[in-house]
Amino acid sequence: MRLLHIDASPRDARSHTRRLTHELVNTWQRERPDDRVEHLDVGRTPPPHVDEPWIAAAFATPSTRTEAMRETLRISDALIAQLIDADLIVLGIPMYNFSVPSGFKAYIDQIARIGVTFAFEPEDEDQPYKPLVHGKRMLVIVATGDSGYEAGGRYQRLNHLDPYLRTVFGFLGITDITFVHAGNDEFGGERLARSLTSAHSRIEEFMRDALAAARPDLCLL
Amino acid sequence: MRLLHIDASPRDARSHTRRLTHELVNTWQRERPDDRVEHLDVGRTPPPHVDEPWIAAAFATPSTRTEAMRETLRISDALIAQLIDADLIVLGIPMYNFSVPSGFKAYIDQIARIGVTFAFEPEDEDQPYKPLVHGKRMLVIVATGDSGYEAGGRYQRLNHLDPYLRTVFGFLGITDITFVHAGNDEFGGERLARSLTSAHSRIEEFMRDALAAARPDLCLL
Repeated sequence: MRLLHIDASPRDARSHTRRLTHELVNTWQRERPDDRVEHLDVGRTPPPHVDEPWIAAAFATPSTRTEAMRETLRISDALIAQLIDADLIVLGIPMYNFSVPSGFKAYIDQIARIGVTFAFEPEDEDQPYKPLVHGKRMLVIVATGDSGYEAGGRYQRLNHLDPYLRTVFGFLGITDITFVHAGNDEFGGERLARSLTSAHSRIEEFMRDALAAARPDLCLL
Repeated sequence: MRLLHIDASPRDARSHTRRLTHELVNTWQRERPDDRVEHLDVGRTPPPHVDEPWIAAAFATPSTRTEAMRETLRISDALIAQLIDADLIVLGIPMYNFSVPSGFKAYIDQIARIGVTFAFEPEDEDQPYKPLVHGKRMLVIVATGDSGYEAGGRYQRLNHLDPYLRTVFGFLGITDITFVHAGNDEFGGERLARSLTSAHSRIEEFMRDALAAARPDLCLL
């Protein structure tokens, strides 16, 4: 199994998602010390925004790309290779203004690449887009300032993070996504503690399931 | 009347939204040469991502902020002053991967400021958030690679741009928002031309209405 561990929080020690993803990865490594884990920190070091030269390069037929165009896509190529290489993606991400932080949107704009992570076939009028990323499982740990953004919560319709990630990762072919919310950072105290405890137990449950699913790999050896 | 003209496209000459917002602003200036127009280009020169020092500064009580904290918030202060100062906001924005480009998300993260553009009153359990920006009207010209993202269109549920902007600007108090879509950039030809013609006429309609609404200002002189 290969894990891709992504932290999208611009905060360091004060980040709840960062602590939760690190705990999960530490447990995973104790259980399966031979698995490879890649760490990507788009929170503290976001990739560049997509710009006009990037768009020109990405939409050019690969065989016609100049050296400068290939250079422009180098970061995108590396981020995509890392994603394709992973079996399990663990993402820790805070909600900023009801959606993803801008640095994580920069990451999405870098990995959504025509002809690489999705195909565009205009002749297929019914379904011109085809996902090109397959066989991944994803856990998303979301931190929010308050709470109630989950299905049935009072802020559900303001949540433009979970539905957006389902859409954009689903578009690339990643459809097996589990969300765990850790809320109430702005309130602190008892409310925050309760929310973190609940997030913890849901992450443990995901881990038990993912570790059980990973076992058949070992049996094949 | 004061206009704030925002371009969010990272593209220059090839940007449809950029051309459409510029045409609109030129017409406005011909009709009302005394109105002030501010231009903000977050497409080609996006503001910085919000980071840990920014968050610490923004959430600190203003009277306790250090000089370094105030410096950290300088760009946010300027962007907010410009927004507060406008009566009409004209935004040209392309859809990138079903949502806003990362550079525009960086702009949103800079202008959503606790105690400045929204208030947080935890003691009001029912409605802890209060919008602080009032009396604005907004036109959003959206460019998409294909089409069908409008209400009733086949990609409506993939559209995380219009509903997101309604949520986040509504949260700040900007609720009078008109959307105009210009689609089919990826197909080009006849389909793109038809879409641009339709966008044109809807922008003209908005303009006629906005100019008519602006006239009472002159009568007061």
